[in-house]
Amino acid sequence: MLDYADELRVGVVELDNGTVVADAGVEAKGGLGAGIYLARLCMADLADIQPTPIEIDGITIPGVQVATDHPAISCMASQCAMWQVKAGNYFAMGSGPARILARKTKELYDALEFEEYSDVGVLFLESDTLPDEAAADKIAEACGIDPADLRLAVAPTDSVAGLVQVSARVVETGLHKLFTLGFDVRTIRNGWGRAPIAPVVGKATRCMGASNDAIIYGGETYYTVEYEPFDELLGYVKAIPSDTSRDYGAPFYKTFKECGFDFFKVDHHVFAPAKVVVNDLRSRRTLVAGRLNPQVLKESFGFEVANREG
Amino acid sequence: MLDYADELRVGVVELDNGTVVADAGVEAKGGLGAGIYLARLCMADLADIQPTPIEIDGITIPGVQVATDHPAISCMASQCAMWQVKAGNYFAMGSGPARILARKTKELYDALEFEEYSDVGVLFLESDTLPDEAAADKIAEACGIDPADLRLAVAPTDSVAGLVQVSARVVETGLHKLFTLGFDVRTIRNGWGRAPIAPVVGKATRCMGASNDAIIYGGETYYTVEYEPFDELLGYVKAIPSDTSRDYGAPFYKTFKECGFDFFKVDHHVFAPAKVVVNDLRSRRTLVAGRLNPQVLKESFGFEVANREG
Amino acid sequence: MLDYADELRVGVVELDNGTVVADAGVEAKGGLGAGIYLARLCMADLADIQPTPIEIDGITIPGVQVATDHPAISCMASQCAMWQVKAGNYFAMGSGPARILARKTKELYDALEFEEYSDVGVLFLESDTLPDEAAADKIAEACGIDPADLRLAVAPTDSVAGLVQVSARVVETGLHKLFTLGFDVRTIRNGWGRAPIAPVVGKATRCMGASNDAIIYGGETYYTVEYEPFDELLGYVKAIPSDTSRDYGAPFYKTFKECGFDFFKVDHHVFAPAKVVVNDLRSRRTLVAGRLNPQVLKESFGFEVANREG
Repeated sequence: MLDYADELRVGVVELDNGTVVADAGVEAKGGLGAGIYLARLCMADLADIQPTPIEIDGITIPGVQVATDHPAISCMASQCAMWQVKAGNYFAMGSGPARILARKTKELYDALEFEEYSDVGVLFLESDTLPDEAAADKIAEACGIDPADLRLAVAPTDSVAGLVQVSARVVETGLHKLFTLGFDVRTIRNGWGRAPIAPVVGKATRCMGASNDAIIYGGETYYTVEYEPFDELLGYVKAIPSDTSRDYGAPFYKTFKECGFDFFKVDHHVFAPAKVVVNDLRSRRTLVAGRLNPQVLKESFGFEVANREG
Repeated sequence: MLDYADELRVGVVELDNGTVVADAGVEAKGGLGAGIYLARLCMADLADIQPTPIEIDGITIPGVQVATDHPAISCMASQCAMWQVKAGNYFAMGSGPARILARKTKELYDALEFEEYSDVGVLFLESDTLPDEAAADKIAEACGIDPADLRLAVAPTDSVAGLVQVSARVVETGLHKLFTLGFDVRTIRNGWGRAPIAPVVGKATRCMGASNDAIIYGGETYYTVEYEPFDELLGYVKAIPSDTSRDYGAPFYKTFKECGFDFFKVDHHVFAPAKVVVNDLRSRRTLVAGRLNPQVLKESFGFEVANREG
Repeated sequence: MLDYADELRVGVVELDNGTVVADAGVEAKGGLGAGIYLARLCMADLADIQPTPIEIDGITIPGVQVATDHPAISCMASQCAMWQVKAGNYFAMGSGPARILARKTKELYDALEFEEYSDVGVLFLESDTLPDEAAADKIAEACGIDPADLRLAVAPTDSVAGLVQVSARVVETGLHKLFTLGFDVRTIRNGWGRAPIAPVVGKATRCMGASNDAIIYGGETYYTVEYEPFDELLGYVKAIPSDTSRDYGAPFYKTFKECGFDFFKVDHHVFAPAKVVVNDLRSRRTLVAGRLNPQVLKESFGFEVANREG
């Protein structure tokens, strides 16, 4: 990413402690290219991530296609935004391989029975502010590495690159839902998916809503698993799609607003792909669950017809 | 491109003045791969260009997907075929980064407030003839570089590679339309699009028609802009799609023929993508204009059903 | 492929005779990535092969998109599985560039008037067993190379990577059908296609059936040819699609079973893409033949709806 900073419209700053920070959307103007690099970084480069056209009720927009042959590691151990970085006034959600070094969260890595050590760390921060030295120091310390060996990338929720990397979480969202249901995600061999990229629809909270909707109403996934017994798997697969949630059916922002912008009041079962196909290598059967919802997507993305006659 | 000449079926000739000429379709038999390299070259390698399936009324053919985070530079300053190269009997339309050195056209670069200097130059020539030394000398002179530092690539309008690189102009066509309407294209942050690749349907003029139709009736685009005021933007977006033209509705070749093959009699507003989506980062609104027209595409591409029963 | 063995979940073994064997699915757990590498290897790296979403009656699953500008070489001389490797108890179907060295089969290379020599050889073996030294020795001997200069890759028919590389034969299948009809495949300039990737639906024979169906009922192809006379070409194009076969209409496994699992009783005309578009550069006409059949695909792939209400 740093090698292609100009092409990607990414700004690069070195802090006094040696931490290198790549800005993909705070002051810089990163786009689709920068967003795809952020997504690769979040997935520890263990995924193939490409732009792909997606049609929503006759309107074609760019989306992302994600394929990973290491879903438990790339999605859960790395991409999942489970590190709440706080340092003084600085706050950001952290994702990427440096989470493994800091074991954020410990419960997850214990469940995955996964650990890995490294002298260098890479973390993506979803934030509208660049981290200062104090934040970088704190992150490096949690990772047990020298601040000069830390690389950070940053993009706000309401930036183009920031929205791209959220849609690239389409495969991860399915794993995360399964994980919270108690499923052993290490039995998932391959993950594939695609989701449209939300446009910038407003300030951070609105963009967060639209990018969630990209997955909740537009995300399509395909997993291969090795699981036994089959009946148990069937129960899990039925439970994955977003439409199993009581909060399914309206744009996320609307639901969030009705909950008084309190995350804990939202039914977390809604954070899931719209559609899921699971090919089980044990039973050699293939289950299909969920459905796309282009109508809610169109409402969430705020498409306005602007034809001359219109 | 030169490194992969054999794989791409591109011929390479060095002229006596040192100019290296890559032939992608005059005597050589370049295909989809060569065409995509031509397109990358035309866009100064500031775009991600990939083959992508496109369905036209139940018939799937290859198309191109283009994404650029430098639309004003890659499309207008580089890809736009605004250099009419003439040297003795040699004539070709020139596109690519060497246009910047020769400031073809000056008005454009003044409007973009863009200039860049280089000791080396790369130009794509749409032509059915390879350039001779005299043509190369003239191009190098206009660029202010040594002929030995000039690289040329050539493909005819009615070659496979030539048709690929036209469809890769889908994002550029929208910028060009906006530019001619007086819009400041530097406010365009990102461009994305796809268009089908026209088959070889006849000699050069017919192929030119079909490849224009690929964009006019099959081109889909998505732009992010930062523009104010919104009402002005709305007016521009309404004016982009090809269907705003009085010459919309028939294959381009037919219109061109009715105009006595006189370009100046064709309504230039027809040179535009079929469909456009614009996400404005200021107002945070998203406008959708235009429509696809698979029926005209099928007529233009000349699909003939050849089923056994048919 | 060997450089990325860990990322691709491919196992690497060196036999005592120096032959290096890459295991993509026997004991190893290669996925989509490994399958795409196998496909590239089979096509002698003369093709662009990418994952691509494919929709089957509202269900989106991963597929492969294949583009080659050397179809006669990449598909027929290399990818086509025409080498029955037998060594003691070891049996596998061999494909890839090492076939050229061993001239498997001689008739094919005579017809293509193609020969090429190399000190190194690469072969893909579709098999559920890793080859031993005796098998590797025999392959190397047939290629006229040192066993230490031989690289083998292996995947079973009922593995994820194995199923990917079958779907990547979509372009080859059209060439092979034309070849068996007596068509001179050297007149084919470019080949492009896409096909869904079959899920693991059962043991080897069932998976073989489903992966054949991916092409027979879901394969879409596009070829550019230079052929004369046109009427003859028209006859060939009409004959390409799978629906010209008397055995068209049921999942392949069903047909195969009804034939008592005897390959010679199956009508070989069924081994063809579902749909074909041919752009002829001589007549400059474009022929379209065949049809997709999502219903048979759904039956063959065994999709089971697992909605909560369902």
